[in-house]
Amino acid sequence: VSVWDPRDVIATKRDGGTLAPAEVERFVGGFARNEIGDGPAAAFLMACLLNGLDEQETLAMTRSILGSGATIGLEAIDRPTVDKHSTGGVGDGVSLIFAPLAAALGLGVVKLSGRGLGHTGGTLDKLAAIPGLRTDLAVEELERQVLEVGCVIAAQSPAIVPADRALYALRDATATVPSVPLIASSVMAKKLAIGSDLILLDVKAGSGAFMASVADAMALGEACLAIAGHAGRRCEAAVTDMSQPLGHAVGNALDVGEAIAVLQGEEHGRLRDLALAFAARAVMAAERIPPDQAAHRAERSLEDGSALERFRAMVASQGGDGRVADDPAGILPRAPVVTPIRADRSGWLSGIRTDEIGRASGALGAGRVRPDDAIDPAVGIVLRPTIGERIEYGEPIGDVHARSHDDAGAAVRRTLAALTIVEGPVAAPPLVHAWLEGG
Amino acid sequence: VSVWDPRDVIATKRDGGTLAPAEVERFVGGFARNEIGDGPAAAFLMACLLNGLDEQETLAMTRSILGSGATIGLEAIDRPTVDKHSTGGVGDGVSLIFAPLAAALGLGVVKLSGRGLGHTGGTLDKLAAIPGLRTDLAVEELERQVLEVGCVIAAQSPAIVPADRALYALRDATATVPSVPLIASSVMAKKLAIGSDLILLDVKAGSGAFMASVADAMALGEACLAIAGHAGRRCEAAVTDMSQPLGHAVGNALDVGEAIAVLQGEEHGRLRDLALAFAARAVMAAERIPPDQAAHRAERSLEDGSALERFRAMVASQGGDGRVADDPAGILPRAPVVTPIRADRSGWLSGIRTDEIGRASGALGAGRVRPDDAIDPAVGIVLRPTIGERIEYGEPIGDVHARSHDDAGAAVRRTLAALTIVEGPVAAPPLVHAWLEGG
Repeated sequence: VSVWDPRDVIATKRDGGTLAPAEVERFVGGFARNEIGDGPAAAFLMACLLNGLDEQETLAMTRSILGSGATIGLEAIDRPTVDKHSTGGVGDGVSLIFAPLAAALGLGVVKLSGRGLGHTGGTLDKLAAIPGLRTDLAVEELERQVLEVGCVIAAQSPAIVPADRALYALRDATATVPSVPLIASSVMAKKLAIGSDLILLDVKAGSGAFMASVADAMALGEACLAIAGHAGRRCEAAVTDMSQPLGHAVGNALDVGEAIAVLQGEEHGRLRDLALAFAARAVMAAERIPPDQAAHRAERSLEDGSALERFRAMVASQGGDGRVADDPAGILPRAPVVTPIRADRSGWLSGIRTDEIGRASGALGAGRVRPDDAIDPAVGIVLRPTIGERIEYGEPIGDVHARSHDDAGAAVRRTLAALTIVEGPVAAPPLVHAWLEGG
Repeated sequence: VSVWDPRDVIATKRDGGTLAPAEVERFVGGFARNEIGDGPAAAFLMACLLNGLDEQETLAMTRSILGSGATIGLEAIDRPTVDKHSTGGVGDGVSLIFAPLAAALGLGVVKLSGRGLGHTGGTLDKLAAIPGLRTDLAVEELERQVLEVGCVIAAQSPAIVPADRALYALRDATATVPSVPLIASSVMAKKLAIGSDLILLDVKAGSGAFMASVADAMALGEACLAIAGHAGRRCEAAVTDMSQPLGHAVGNALDVGEAIAVLQGEEHGRLRDLALAFAARAVMAAERIPPDQAAHRAERSLEDGSALERFRAMVASQGGDGRVADDPAGILPRAPVVTPIRADRSGWLSGIRTDEIGRASGALGAGRVRPDDAIDPAVGIVLRPTIGERIEYGEPIGDVHARSHDDAGAAVRRTLAALTIVEGPVAAPPLVHAWLEGG
């Protein structure tokens, strides 16, 4: 009679061996049920990070996380449903635009989001900047809102993938976050828990992302698609540029304001382009229409105000002040100090340490370090130039929104120090590096 | 202002970087003070195991462990002092012979030992098989006994290297034991905490040892010598054979009985030879005499009964029944069932899965799995043949000492299954592979 010993699982991974799916599921399940402590689990995660997980092991990890909690089937939704997930970046308010835009296109979006951990707030933190808005919705509320409004962005229920929260908290504390199979299994378990017809992934690559290189981001995207394929779920992944903030705003209320400006048709640029690209992809998949037709329909829903109208309805349905859609400046919280950022050199903007912009915004109060930290919705950074643009000395290139002049001064200095300005012209990076298509 | 984050230390090791000594000491110190939890510490240990520690990092690790508790200077001892440590094997009762033998040679031995974790008991568990014997001695008792008797074997005080106990418990639970720098720093911190003039290490290599290969054992020995050298301590290490049990007995009372038989001059063989080799080495170092003279003196102290006399005095001084030195069979606990092991094949003994012999003895009750498990002092296995010897079918080759006939039968089968018997003659392995000399 052989007794199961979790140390054998750790030792196999430590020694570069391959685990049977049942071993992975038993170990992760044991951790989720508190039968295996933080020590063995952390040693296991580090061995996984350093020695890797193959496709079958990654699948087993995903299944273990998925199986630790409840799922939401969405069977009651009578329209094609789509979920969208970003691996996380700076100034990334795409979901705030994508969800009402997809709803305006006749699709249903149930987006469950965790609170942001890291320098900047997550989608949920941004949305929570709208006064009165609730994100802790019951499953019945989610389903009713999708039926009535077409879209909902809410907090992940504690009943869904509890093992992911436990594993992520441990990974965050043990420097075991940056692993392609661990990230892929975490992302996909959350996505598989919601029964959407299509899963769209935005895998970020660059100085503001987990994956600094496009190659690593491609690997992460492929790993996610493989999981979706084995689960029989339709999934597409874009590898997109995070070598600079996606939008101009890096904060929470500031991000919401910029998203509304896009929905109002007043703001153009990378944020709008990416939201449109995802919406077109979703409508293409749902209606089997050609790309140009899908792009045209998405653009029209933005231009005719129907996406803005869905945004207003979503906010109101979740208890928020719907007037924010028309008067963001009047409704959203505002920081007491707004200080312009003026260029300290002339030249072409060739690079941005995007993570540093995120950290500077976090230091103003826009992000959290620990899961229970409070977030200041009003503060943040607005940075207008994008890579490849010409900047003149003394020119205002953005603003810092802060609680104090000291805070603002520090953020201005950090922002300027994060910019690389060169003497000759440089090319702008592509917004979308690649689209990867799964099963 | 940069805030110290333990995750940066983990990440450096994870990414193959080198830590500054202060970073290692801060991390290990933080763990010892319960400021860093099991999760981060286990991730760190796994990263150390997989990516290694260089000499400076290993030194810093040793210093951190040593600095977590008290040390014992031994300044009051007026004779040359020697400490002896084995990395752990099966049937290894050398210390039980070495300590009184060195005392008979005019040296002082303070050996502090942990309780065995693993299949077989440690030196302390063996000694505790003697009725009445105390191993929990205060520092003053240790010093008084060395002055009066010349040798003492006692339990490690909780005040000495507390970080080592915490780290080892975590390593044991997280499959992070088998790492040369982690083993070396653990061994040497314990040895450096006692101010002996000479440290002798017995680094075991083979199927019954942590280090299966001679090369790995050499590396461990060299790592220990490097630490001793930096600490300005004299240290010598033997790499010795653990491809078979060292003595014939694998248990606790059985080991004591075999050690007494050696001290009585009745038992010859590998166990006696190795105890003599260490004693000769100690007397060589203390008196700067040539090897043959030292070997002769060690052998004489064994043959003239003076080592046995020191053993009797040590036992009595620690409250044990000194008559055990003359009548071990009458004083030591005995198992109710003694079953002969008979060879199930004829041929030459070419190999022993020594760890399996240890496990079979552990399954009888001679070892512990958890630190608080009780040990049965009476049970164990006696296996007479050594590698290279001829065995005839049906010949009794040893005995199992057990609580029940079922237990005994199982241990007989496991022992026979752990033996490799071949048709042609094979050479016996050398007892000592190498002596490594330090600073």
